Order: sequence, then C-alpha cells, then structure tokens
Amino acid sequence: MRADARKNRDHLLAVAGAVITEQGAEASMRDIARRAGTGLATLLRHFPTREALFEALLRTSFDELTARAGDLETANSPDDALVSWLRDFVAVAHNYRGVVALMVAAIEDPQSALHTSCVTMRAAGTRLLGRAQDDGTARTDIDGTDLYALAGSLAWLNDQPALAPRADHLFDVVVGAIMTSPGSDNAKKENRSRARS
Amino acid sequence: MRADARKNRDHLLAVAGAVITEQGAEASMRDIARRAGTGLATLLRHFPTREALFEALLRTSFDELTARAGDLETANSPDDALVSWLRDFVAVAHNYRGVVALMVAAIEDPQSALHTSCVTMRAAGTRLLGRAQDDGTARTDIDGTDLYALAGSLAWLNDQPALAPRADHLFDVVVGAIMTSPGSDNAKKENRSRARS
Repeated sequence: MRADARKNRDHLLAVAGAVITEQGAEASMRDIARRAGTGLATLLRHFPTREALFEALLRTSFDELTARAGDLETANSPDDALVSWLRDFVAVAHNYRGVVALMVAAIEDPQSALHTSCVTMRAAGTRLLGRAQDDGTARTDIDGTDLYALAGSLAWLNDQPALAPRADHLFDVVVGAIMTSPGSDNAKKENRSRARS
Repeated sequence: MRADARKNRDHLLAVAGAVITEQGAEASMRDIARRAGTGLATLLRHFPTREALFEALLRTSFDELTARAGDLETANSPDDALVSWLRDFVAVAHNYRGVVALMVAAIEDPQSALHTSCVTMRAAGTRLLGRAQDDGTARTDIDGTDLYALAGSLAWLNDQPALAPRADHLFDVVVGAIMTSPGSDNAKKENRSRARS
C-alpha cells in the first residue's frame, strides 16, 4: 500500500472508531464517510462492507487480547490469569458499543470477516480456562464457548449506561460463578482428579 | 375507544409484535405501518413514538410477569419461586429480540413510556429475591437491580443465535451464582443471621 493510501486508511479507521464509540455498531457507513470528510465510494473502496471495517478496527484489539493471554499464561497463576484476561476482554468489547453481538455471531460464521480473529482470541481464552480447570480453580463444566458467551454477556452489561454503577460488582458475581471458590479444597481435588482422568 | 378503533389498534400491535420478533427492536415504524397495510400517520396516531408502541406491546408481558411473581410468592419455596421467575423473565424478553436493552434503560429513565411497568416488574422480582435471601437460598450481596441486570444479561445471551445451544447451561451457571448452594448450611445460617440483623 502506498504511503498516502495507508494514511487515508488510517484516518478512516480513526474516524470510524470514534463514530462507533459514539453511536454503537449501528452507525451508518454514510455517516462515517461524512465525518471523515470523504465520499461513501472512497470509504467502500477501502472497506467494502461494514464487517470488513469492523474487522480492521477490531483486529488490533483482538490481537492484543490474544497476545495478552499468552503473557498471562506464562507470568500469572492460572486463576489470576483467567480473571485478568476476562477483565481485559470486557474492557475491549466496551470500547465499541454494540459490537459484542457481532463478535459472538462471527464465531459461528466462517464467512464473517471477523471470524478468524474471533476464533483465535477465543482459543487463547480457552487455553487460560483449561489451565485454571487443571489447577482446580475454574469449574470444569464450562468450555471455551461458554467462557466467551459469559464474557460477552459481561461486556453487554457494561454497555448498558443504566447498569454502569453495578458493573464491577456484576463482573465479580459472574466471574465468581466461573471460578471455584478459592478455599474449596474439595473442589480443587475433584477437578484435579477429573483433569487427570 | 370505539370498537373499530380498538380493532385497528389491536391489529397494529399484532403486526408490530411479528415485525419486532423478526427484525428486532430496530424495526422501523415505517416498516410496521407498511406491513399493517396502513400509513405511517395512522400508526403514529395510535402510537406517537416507538417507545409508546413498545410499551403497549410489552405491558401485557410485564403485567403477566408481575402477576406470576405474586403467584410464585404464595405457592412455591423461595428458591424455586425465584428460579422459575427468572426463567419466565428470560423467555418473555426473548420474544422481542433486542428489547432487553430498552427495558434496562427504562428502569433509570422516568420519562420512558416503559418506566412504570419495568419498575413494577423489577419490584416483583426484588420481593422474590428478598424471600430467597431471608431463606438463605440466595446470596445477600445482590439487590433487585443486580437481579434485573443478570436476568437481562441472560435474556441477551438467549438472543444470540450462535449461543442458543448453550443457553440453558449458561442460565444454570449464572442463576447458580445468584443462589447459594443448596447443601451449604453455613451459607444459609450466615444469610439468616444477616437477614435478622
């Protein structure tokens, strides 16, 4: 890509990010083009569909979440790693209002432009979940898709202005349901033996 | 209201319900009028805003949920009553795709046409929560707003087609976080003494 084309693309992405943060995932391509001071045709030349635009916008965030999972996997205890990652996931999803439903749908739709980056990120989360399950600190009856769904529902809660004051508490309640209670030695033992079998 | 006006209104509501079930809460008033075989002006004479239309559409469901809470309160054990009611809440919200965010917003907005019926319904749920908390079967660190938020997030999960196969399991996970474990006598005792103090 030539330097000026790259610059135009970066400008469109920056404007799109701002508009979507304001208006949510329903923001129109026409609006985004207008705010960027360009025509719809120019925007569509760079991003032929809304999904392609979202993919470009979110790929950096998704890649960061995937990389963050890798860092946490080596540096933190399994339970701290999982909880920290969930917190990051919710914060990223919250940056782009209304985008969570698109992310969740993309997981099951190989045609979606968001599919690959969502699947990669979910796999990173699934690894963190597996470590915590092996360690006896996360319940074993949920899988990577459940984790992704629960993280998505927390991001949705975070997106509701009326619930903002309770968001941290509700995070603790739902994440508490994923994690087995820290003092519960029996749960740990049981999970460990299940993980081995 | 004259009989024919009532009949027209009921027809508009039935069509609106069908369109919103198909297209979600973003369905346009223009679309609804077209499908009802009438003009936008006629629709707006009956329902001057989208919110007024939603309120009319949802009021019956909300009133049913409020009445159902009353029935459960007298007939069931506190924990069964709360879980059954949450299941009903999720089912009702699921009938009108995308409507959960409107419900959650209406709670904090006295200007919303949905405000009164949402507040009444939340109060009915809060009573069921209080009974289960007094009984030691629900955790005491959540309030009626938290319950409403968690029920809303479950309804949101239910609304995501990609998550449908896991919806029942995720309901159990999140509702499990609201309820203290049935065998946990200590939790019961602790809750009872808190409820008394």
